Amino acid sequence: MNILVQKYGGTSVGSIERIMNVAKRIIEYKNQGYAMVVTVSAMAGETDRLINLAKQITPQPDGRELDMMVSTGEQVSIALLAIALHSMGYKAISMNAYQAGIYTDSVYTKAKIGKINTERIIKELENDNIVIVAGFQGIDDNYNITTLGRGGSDTTAVALAAALKAVKCEIYTDVDGVYTADPRIVKEAKKLDEITYDEMLELASLGAKVLHSRSVEFAKKYDVVLEVKNSFNNNSGTIIVKESKKMEKFVVSGITCKKDEAKVNIINLPDRPGIAARIFSELSNNNINVNMIAQSSLDDNSGINNISFTVSREDLPKVVKIMENLKKELGAKDVITSNNIAIVSVVGIGMKTNPGVAARMFSILGNEKINIEMISTSEIKISVVIKEEFANKAVQLLHKEFELDKV
Amino acid sequence: MNILVQKYGGTSVGSIERIMNVAKRIIEYKNQGYAMVVTVSAMAGETDRLINLAKQITPQPDGRELDMMVSTGEQVSIALLAIALHSMGYKAISMNAYQAGIYTDSVYTKAKIGKINTERIIKELENDNIVIVAGFQGIDDNYNITTLGRGGSDTTAVALAAALKAVKCEIYTDVDGVYTADPRIVKEAKKLDEITYDEMLELASLGAKVLHSRSVEFAKKYDVVLEVKNSFNNNSGTIIVKESKKMEKFVVSGITCKKDEAKVNIINLPDRPGIAARIFSELSNNNINVNMIAQSSLDDNSGINNISFTVSREDLPKVVKIMENLKKELGAKDVITSNNIAIVSVVGIGMKTNPGVAARMFSILGNEKINIEMISTSEIKISVVIKEEFANKAVQLLHKEFELDKV
Repeated sequence: MNILVQKYGGTSVGSIERIMNVAKRIIEYKNQGYAMVVTVSAMAGETDRLINLAKQITPQPDGRELDMMVSTGEQVSIALLAIALHSMGYKAISMNAYQAGIYTDSVYTKAKIGKINTERIIKELENDNIVIVAGFQGIDDNYNITTLGRGGSDTTAVALAAALKAVKCEIYTDVDGVYTADPRIVKEAKKLDEITYDEMLELASLGAKVLHSRSVEFAKKYDVVLEVKNSFNNNSGTIIVKESKKMEKFVVSGITCKKDEAKVNIINLPDRPGIAARIFSELSNNNINVNMIAQSSLDDNSGINNISFTVSREDLPKVVKIMENLKKELGAKDVITSNNIAIVSVVGIGMKTNPGVAARMFSILGNEKINIEMISTSEIKISVVIKEEFANKAVQLLHKEFELDKV
Repeated sequence: MNILVQKYGGTSVGSIERIMNVAKRIIEYKNQGYAMVVTVSAMAGETDRLINLAKQITPQPDGRELDMMVSTGEQVSIALLAIALHSMGYKAISMNAYQAGIYTDSVYTKAKIGKINTERIIKELENDNIVIVAGFQGIDDNYNITTLGRGGSDTTAVALAAALKAVKCEIYTDVDGVYTADPRIVKEAKKLDEITYDEMLELASLGAKVLHSRSVEFAKKYDVVLEVKNSFNNNSGTIIVKESKKMEKFVVSGITCKKDEAKVNIINLPDRPGIAARIFSELSNNNINVNMIAQSSLDDNSGINNISFTVSREDLPKVVKIMENLKKELGAKDVITSNNIAIVSVVGIGMKTNPGVAARMFSILGNEKINIEMISTSEIKISVVIKEEFANKAVQLLHKEFELDKV
C-alpha cells in the first residue's frame, strides 16, 4: 500500500462547504491510487468556544476534564468529513484516538504521543476505506482522553505517517507554505520552496505558526517527508527536508516573532550551585515549558545572581504562584514578570558557515534604539527579547538586512 | 456504599448557570452520604445542532458517523459538570461510554445496552469521586461509538442504577413528574404521585415524553426504584413502582397523544400465510420499529387482505423504499402512507378490572364525529389512530370522560 497522510486545519474544515471541498481533494488523491489517511482539526472557532464554556465556570479548569471536552471538536469534524465522502460515493470511516490506537502520556492539555497501534487503521485501509483520524487527541494507559496542545493535529498527522510508513505527509493550511517572515508584518515576505527540518524546528518553536513543533521533531526523527500546502488552491507548497543545497546560499532563511511569551526575572539570587536546577525542575514538574533562559552573574564577588526566563503567557499565573512559593526557599529578593515582550529571531542553516550574523542583528536593533533584554542562540538561530511595541519594526528591518525579499 | 443515580436532561444543563445549579443539587445528596453517579444529556439544542450539520451534507447520513458526532454533546456536558463540581470543592470525574464500560449492540442511532462493566466507576466512587457518566452513548464490541436513540440518557441512568445496585434512580427533567395528560393540551392535567412500571411503559411508548421506554423496561426488569423530578424546584415527583393500591381506584391513569408517527397501508394483499411475517421481518432487518399493527381480512373469499401499521415519521422514507421493493414480490396493489395522523391512547391498570373502557372511548370519539382509522389494545391501554387535527380535542374529551382532573 502506498499510504498518503494528509492533515487539514480548522479553517480548511470551517464550514460544510469547505468540508465538501476537502472531500473532493482527498478523492483526487484516492483516485491516483493512494491509501488515504486523513487527520482533521476541529472546525475553526470550535476549540475556543469549548474552552470558553469551561472558563465561564473557573479560570483554571482541570486538565483531564478540559481534554474530555475540547477533544469533541475533532470528533465532530471527522464524522462530517466521513459523511461528505460517503455522499460522493466513497467508503470512509472516522476514528477517534482510542479507535486509532494513539497512546500518549497523561500530561493533560499537552500530552506527548508514545506509541500508535495501527492495526485497525491498516484493517480499514485494506477494506478500501478512506480513514479519517481525529487530530489533536490521544488516550493514556487508563483510557483517559488527552490532547496534544494547540496545533497538535500536525503532530497526529506526522506520527501517523511515521507509524504507517507513509510515502508523504501533507499539511494543508490556509497559506501557501512557510514564509521568510509573517506576511502580515513584512509585505515582501517570500514563500520558501524548501526548508530543512532543523530550520523548521526553530521556526515552529519561535512562533511561525505554520507547524506544531512536535510534528517537525517527529518528522525529523522518523524521516517523514513533510509538505505544507494551501487547501484553498493548487499552488506548490514548502517541502521540509533533511538537507537543502539551495538554502545554504542564504545566510538566514526566516525571521520570526513570538508575541505569546512572558518574561520572568528572579532578582538577587544567592550565587550557589543547584539554584537553577531547583527552579527549572520545579517548573518542569508542573509541566511548564520554559523557552529562553538567561543567567547573568554580577561577577563582583557579591555572591548575587539574576536569572531570567520566558514561558508562555498562558502559563504565567501558574509560574507566578510557583515562584512565590520558591522565592523564600531560594532567598531571592524579588520576582518580576512582564507580558509586554516579544521574542524576535533570525533562523538559517547558512549561519553555521557565516559568522557575524549576531553582530549584524544587534547593530540593526541598536541603530534603531531597540533595547535587547535577553539573548539566546543556537547553531542556526539567534533570538532576542525586546519590548513588544518594537517587534514588528524589528522583523521588517531584519528581513531587509538579510535580503529575504530576494529569496 | 449507598449509591444514588441521578439523571439530568438537556434543559437542566442548558447553560453554565443551570449546570452550576445541578452541581449544587448533586452536592446536597453527596453530603447526605450517598455515593453519587450522575448521568447528563447534551446541553439543550446541541444534539439538534449536530444532526443539522450532518443533514446539510446528506438527508440520510451514515449511522456510525452520526453516532460518532452526536455523542460529543454529552461528552461536553459531563466535563462541564465535573468542572463545576471541582469549582465547588468536590472531587468529580467524567466518563464517556467506553470509560464507564457501557457496551451495546451495533445498531447505530438506536443501540441497546447489553452489559455494563462497572469496575472503573466503582473504583472512582471508592476514591470519593462524584462520577459523571455521559448519557445516550455506548460502545460496541469493536469500540465503535453507538447511541441509544433520542431520550436514551434515561436508559443509561436506569441501566447504571441496575448494574450498580443503586438505592434509587432519580430522573430530573423540566416538569414536576408524570401527568395524566400533556398539560399543554389539557389544562386540568394532574401530576401523578405514583404510577406502575407497566402503565409508565405504555405511557412512554405512547408519546408521554417524560421517560425513554427502554429505561422503564430496564427499571421493571431489575426492580430499580425510579423517580421523575423537576430540576428547577424541590417539589415531590412521580415514583414509578411495581404495584400501586392508590392507582387502582381509577380506571384510567393517563391519556397520551403521539404525533410523530406515520401510517402505512398495504392495499389488496393476497390473503396467504407468511405474508405478514415477510413484511415485518424485512422492516425488523432494517431496524425499523413498528408501533401499531392492524390487519383486516375482507372475509369475502376474495382472498384479498389489507395490512396497516405505524412507524416513526423519521423512518418513513426508509419504509417507503423497503415497501416499494416488496410490493411486487408480495403482489400488493398499492402502498399508501400518511403523515397526517396521531395516536391517542388511554392507559391504566384499572382497566384490567373495569370492562367497557374501549366502548366509552369509541363513543366519545364517535359523538364528535372523529373517525377511528386503526385500533390496538393491550391489557392496560387502548390506542386509536385518528387524523392529527382532531388529536388535541380527543385528548381533552377523554381526560374529562375518565375524570382525570379528579386524580
